[in-house]
Amino acid sequence: MDHPPLNAPSSEAIARLVKIVGQANAITEAADQAPYLTEWRDRYVGRTSLVLRPGSTDEVSQILKVANTERIAVVPQGGNTGLVGGQIPFETGKEVVISLSRLNRIRHVDSGGDHMVCEAGVTLAQAQATADETNRLFPLSLASEGTCQIGGNIATNAGGTGVLAYGNTRQLTLGLEIVLADGSVLTNLKPLKKDNTGYDLSNLFIGSEGTLGIITAATLKLFPKPLWHETAFVACPSLEAIAKLYQAASTSLAQQLTAFEFLPTRAIQFLEKHVEKIRAPVETTSPWYVLLEISHLSDPATQSQETPETASAFETLLADAIDQRLADDVAIAASQSQQKDFWQLRELLSEVQKFEGGSIKHDISVPVHAIPEFISRGNALIEKLCPGARPVPFGHFGDGNVHYNISQPANADKSAFLDRWEEVNAAVHALVTEMGGSISAEHGIGRMKREELVEHKDPIALHTMRAIKNALDPVGIMNPGKVL
Amino acid sequence: MDHPPLNAPSSEAIARLVKIVGQANAITEAADQAPYLTEWRDRYVGRTSLVLRPGSTDEVSQILKVANTERIAVVPQGGNTGLVGGQIPFETGKEVVISLSRLNRIRHVDSGGDHMVCEAGVTLAQAQATADETNRLFPLSLASEGTCQIGGNIATNAGGTGVLAYGNTRQLTLGLEIVLADGSVLTNLKPLKKDNTGYDLSNLFIGSEGTLGIITAATLKLFPKPLWHETAFVACPSLEAIAKLYQAASTSLAQQLTAFEFLPTRAIQFLEKHVEKIRAPVETTSPWYVLLEISHLSDPATQSQETPETASAFETLLADAIDQRLADDVAIAASQSQQKDFWQLRELLSEVQKFEGGSIKHDISVPVHAIPEFISRGNALIEKLCPGARPVPFGHFGDGNVHYNISQPANADKSAFLDRWEEVNAAVHALVTEMGGSISAEHGIGRMKREELVEHKDPIALHTMRAIKNALDPVGIMNPGKVL
Repeated sequence: MDHPPLNAPSSEAIARLVKIVGQANAITEAADQAPYLTEWRDRYVGRTSLVLRPGSTDEVSQILKVANTERIAVVPQGGNTGLVGGQIPFETGKEVVISLSRLNRIRHVDSGGDHMVCEAGVTLAQAQATADETNRLFPLSLASEGTCQIGGNIATNAGGTGVLAYGNTRQLTLGLEIVLADGSVLTNLKPLKKDNTGYDLSNLFIGSEGTLGIITAATLKLFPKPLWHETAFVACPSLEAIAKLYQAASTSLAQQLTAFEFLPTRAIQFLEKHVEKIRAPVETTSPWYVLLEISHLSDPATQSQETPETASAFETLLADAIDQRLADDVAIAASQSQQKDFWQLRELLSEVQKFEGGSIKHDISVPVHAIPEFISRGNALIEKLCPGARPVPFGHFGDGNVHYNISQPANADKSAFLDRWEEVNAAVHALVTEMGGSISAEHGIGRMKREELVEHKDPIALHTMRAIKNALDPVGIMNPGKVL
Repeated sequence: MDHPPLNAPSSEAIARLVKIVGQANAITEAADQAPYLTEWRDRYVGRTSLVLRPGSTDEVSQILKVANTERIAVVPQGGNTGLVGGQIPFETGKEVVISLSRLNRIRHVDSGGDHMVCEAGVTLAQAQATADETNRLFPLSLASEGTCQIGGNIATNAGGTGVLAYGNTRQLTLGLEIVLADGSVLTNLKPLKKDNTGYDLSNLFIGSEGTLGIITAATLKLFPKPLWHETAFVACPSLEAIAKLYQAASTSLAQQLTAFEFLPTRAIQFLEKHVEKIRAPVETTSPWYVLLEISHLSDPATQSQETPETASAFETLLADAIDQRLADDVAIAASQSQQKDFWQLRELLSEVQKFEGGSIKHDISVPVHAIPEFISRGNALIEKLCPGARPVPFGHFGDGNVHYNISQPANADKSAFLDRWEEVNAAVHALVTEMGGSISAEHGIGRMKREELVEHKDPIALHTMRAIKNALDPVGIMNPGKVL
């Protein structure tokens, strides 16, 4: 984009910015800044002269007014758990970091109206707990939920394990309060299910990764709280069988199917090798496994005394799967504690890969039915590119979302393998694009995939995105060099 | 907006445009043009020198290239069933109408992948039937479904009776193919549930009423087909009781609650008076009635032989409603034919009002819990403004969407009453805005509510909308004078 260059903040501008938030909430010492400048995997380490911690929407507005007038780039930051570097400033030191973590009030909970209004800095765990206290569910669920913040979740349209039944963060957001680049405040926190009065502005900011404005608050949807779960661990002979099992499950269980995660036998080997006392819940060794969960949404008080019908739908589904050879073996969790054990296998999966050396990661999606073909072609590609490298594809089958991670060949050199990150990404992403998929299913573009986006995204879409960016942020101060 | 003026198409431009679609698909005779220029309620009658009926996305693209270069305004049109005049050209005759009805192919159906790709001119009924043939549900359902088209449904983010469980058209759309103002084609028809590669462009065009581009095709979500329904007609003592019943129903039935419509006793009187053989399904005369439906999504083949659990949840809900005096009386439909009878009451409601003279209409939404207060304050307002006028508020309670229609005082002059349309709208909409609602829940802005929008919408939102409009349609040819 042909903007005149942005400025490093002058000492006069810094003084004005510090005054807005107060000395105590302006961080200028390098040691104190460190947590805001380092991504948790140490992939990006940025520099800045100033981290600002505004305490209100009005302070955010004042900051952006100054930044826009003085042509100073800003980097909004939530819980700093992003995986693509979107929340970290560049190494130039010219950008100002705006941490939203002090905007941490829950403004309003309406359990009857099934919504709540949270400020950007509320952690996801806090939002979940607040919903729970009013006997409602906020279904967004991520590994980083103790740390990540609602503002960042929305800015990156976070996914996670609740997407299958409840959708991405986008589908959970009813309205936003946003400070625009010029400091004006765009407010639409109305909890309306229907509002056809002009363009849908909220959805434009959801997933825009801080490049169009700063989200300061959001109206979030709440749901009836599921009152019991039924969890199965299923050994499957092939990915094609899993695809058929998924179709049967989604047809017969619909919205009650709340998880359909898959993992390969190699993941089980890694888990059993590196985590003490962990064992696959089924005896049978199969090439693939599925973690399947249904949630029962109705209030048991309104139920008849017999076994609820969905339990039998669930059992019938699994029995049919065995009959039709879609499953080799099935374990149904007999208790809540066993349910936790089943989930632990899935949750430790990202963690356990590091014990097997370097891992080159992908966060891709393809149409659900194309997963078997994608993995088969991907694995062939990897074997050709890095003989002996060990694919560990797992993830959210029902969302078409595969974390196509590749562990290094056993006993090979870790850094030599990781040096091939971009080369491997390029090959895998070319396959994804050929198959009509997305090179970033749930993690976003940020800094990491910005250059790749230019290769994989429709040029008309990129052109349209740039036109919108220029219209809403003509000076170009909002998180420049991210996404676009 | 400060655009240089647009041009009436020169005869040379007309010739070029006609050549793109062929003589047979270019309508220049006034008599043949009439169906494209008259809104079905005769509220707007437009003029044009040319109606174009392109047969492909490429032809739409060629048309917009010419229109954009020659500065000719275009009005996209689907089934011409819109209620706010968005699809009708102005009386100047300078605009060219582009009918999408020849783009009527269903390009692809993937019942396993739960999506289909329809062109803009496919009627909603055709889309529903196609889904049904593959044992899937496309849940959008409107009174005009035999005539309205998918492109128009998306351009207006249509609502209807399926919104409670499945969402508006926005929630049913996975991707779009759009011809932009300069003729370039923005294509994202990928059926991906997760794709975080930049701004969400599709949602910007959904509900933009033809002012940003022309939708030529869409990837639509399909759902498992509900296999049985349970329908009840409930007599209720008050709107407050209905609000409590809705909360109990949505908590215990969640996604299985597929309709929760409400109507006043006056509606029943109108129906019984003007429609032969129609009777309320309950004996009790109460101030309000609710039509409540649950849909059972599971395959009966996977069910146990007992009465399915949701039936008892449903019965328990209704029995509790009687116990807690939320309901005065309940009728449960005993057969499919009785279910149809129940629905007929709701469906004839718009129709039957005309036998009682003039009706001033509103399509508003407020937060669900605010419906009782809105109607109580609205009725007081109306009684003051037009003593004797008869409010007939009905609609989609669970969506917060009230069709707040006012029948004229009995035996009063119809046209004198209808002359007060704008005055009554202004008073009702002021109340809606005060209560945090929307002055257009599902019908859009079009031409009818454009001036009112300026009064009711946040100026920052309007400014942002205009900035986006200017960025994507700098010449201003796309349906000018609508929405903005």
